[in-house]
Amino acid sequence: MDKTIEWVKEGEFGYSLMINQTVLPFEYKKEKIRTTEEMYNAIKTMIVRGAPAIGIAGAHGTALSAIELINEENFIEKLMQKADYLNSSRPTAVNLSWAIEAQKELALKNKNLPNKKISEILIENAIRLENEDIEINKKIGEYGASVVPRGAGILTHCNAGSLATVGYGTALGVIRSAYKKDNTIQVFADETRPRGQGAKLTTYELVKDNINTTLITDGMCSYFMRNKMINFVVTGADRIASNGDTANKIGTSTVAIAAKYYNIPFYIAAPKSTIDMNIKSGNDIVIELRDEDEVKIVNGKPICIDGVNIINPSFDITDNSLITGIITEYGIIKPSDLKNIFS
Amino acid sequence: MDKTIEWVKEGEFGYSLMINQTVLPFEYKKEKIRTTEEMYNAIKTMIVRGAPAIGIAGAHGTALSAIELINEENFIEKLMQKADYLNSSRPTAVNLSWAIEAQKELALKNKNLPNKKISEILIENAIRLENEDIEINKKIGEYGASVVPRGAGILTHCNAGSLATVGYGTALGVIRSAYKKDNTIQVFADETRPRGQGAKLTTYELVKDNINTTLITDGMCSYFMRNKMINFVVTGADRIASNGDTANKIGTSTVAIAAKYYNIPFYIAAPKSTIDMNIKSGNDIVIELRDEDEVKIVNGKPICIDGVNIINPSFDITDNSLITGIITEYGIIKPSDLKNIFS
Repeated sequence: MDKTIEWVKEGEFGYSLMINQTVLPFEYKKEKIRTTEEMYNAIKTMIVRGAPAIGIAGAHGTALSAIELINEENFIEKLMQKADYLNSSRPTAVNLSWAIEAQKELALKNKNLPNKKISEILIENAIRLENEDIEINKKIGEYGASVVPRGAGILTHCNAGSLATVGYGTALGVIRSAYKKDNTIQVFADETRPRGQGAKLTTYELVKDNINTTLITDGMCSYFMRNKMINFVVTGADRIASNGDTANKIGTSTVAIAAKYYNIPFYIAAPKSTIDMNIKSGNDIVIELRDEDEVKIVNGKPICIDGVNIINPSFDITDNSLITGIITEYGIIKPSDLKNIFS
Repeated sequence: MDKTIEWVKEGEFGYSLMINQTVLPFEYKKEKIRTTEEMYNAIKTMIVRGAPAIGIAGAHGTALSAIELINEENFIEKLMQKADYLNSSRPTAVNLSWAIEAQKELALKNKNLPNKKISEILIENAIRLENEDIEINKKIGEYGASVVPRGAGILTHCNAGSLATVGYGTALGVIRSAYKKDNTIQVFADETRPRGQGAKLTTYELVKDNINTTLITDGMCSYFMRNKMINFVVTGADRIASNGDTANKIGTSTVAIAAKYYNIPFYIAAPKSTIDMNIKSGNDIVIELRDEDEVKIVNGKPICIDGVNIINPSFDITDNSLITGIITEYGIIKPSDLKNIFS
């Protein structure tokens, strides 16, 4: 599979190339992103989505900002402004601000170099983060596979796959690594309304990999857990607080509560960059509210009459007490141990 | 609002007239059902749906069977066969078999009368059940309203409204009665994938009644419970076992588990005819599996690529321990008390 997002060298600097995830799985096309504004829109409209992937998009975007400003005075000041603008494209996933802050720091550290040199440093760093992402995911996959029961029925919510990262995936990385050891596993993919990333992206990735995959609607998890067809859950994360409370795609906490009720292990798979040690709990995480039409319009037509209120929170908070473990590139960590390990 | 299903007298006998629920809320049309076969298809394809409404459809259908057979020999034997065929249209809602069995018994009791007279008796009984249904729902509404907190945020799943009954509704009957006492209540309607009865039918009914209604996706309940915007849940039921385990639309048990986690009262609203004292627990309830395309095709187009497995259970079982009370026309009953009251 191609990288979801990659820096393409061309001419003096290059551009960011990404798979357009708003048209998958029925159309496969790539977008060339050459400006800060284009990157802002690509993140906001979810041409690129998934916490680790938008982290890389933030790193690429900051490099594009530097290229744009190369002949301007007050380069550093203007670069910081553009970086902050990029960071405002989506609020919940910490990976975006993590990557942008890393780029800002790097630029500040090198502020006395020529603008062109700073731009090259930011490009190099973006490419380094891009390549690291796949290695991190493979480590997450290995650790995660070690706790997947033989012949497991694995539920995942939304898409934390290759398409949510540069490649391989976090939750789907765990599933890919588990499948290599045991090809009898079965995956259940929540469709993940309103935007349907489970139906569109997760099934697309897993069917391409020949992994047995069943699509279910978001309310069905309890049925399959009660019937013992699902006995393991793994999802990604958009931001993990220092106490282990986790923001992930809306509907995740509903699944986690059901898993707890049926005594089924519930794991989060995410890189260290998704952990935000600066916040105490899930109550401090800003939940993005998105457009009503994401709920109301499906395949181009409304599902309800006019006059109905709609509220569309894009994420929810899963309490740390519902999480069996957080699968990171450093191993599997209990929510309550994050403080000891990463402080 | 018109009756969802009603017997129309015309000529010697008449026919069954129903609102076609497969085209709502964007089109309002009625279907005249004149034969057993037409009624079988109307139930199976969900032109008429909702446990109490398909009970009445079964009563009407048995009357239509009698009319069809009026000039035949072995009238009673053939009538029993047609009634059993009608009963096979959908397996989970007990109201269907309850109404059909009542009609069968009535026919057997009067088997020595002329065929025409038996047919008239079945029509009269169907009309009686039809009129009783609205009265029962108003009693359910009254009892239910007494436990709704002032200013409540009420979640309901699927459609247990006027459209699921002859009129007024069970869960929506509770909401309608609560609204008469307190117009500050707010309703949250789960869209209820795969068929979207919440998005299509519940919001349609409530907006027409000017009740403040917010449409949410099926995974969102935990978000709104955690944020204390939902503090009361009421749904309908398709079959209640003697221990109080309840079959209702797929996704109901997921909501009930979330409600338990957040200590939010979860009520079932259903007439006595939905209670099946012949079965011990939810494990004895047959869950209908419906066509994959209900999950896969939304508004005429697929939501996933080909090659993905789909399983589409139409109902799930909510454990009695998750149910605060069952709101019936006889009052609100704890699941564990059903045996004492109805044995």
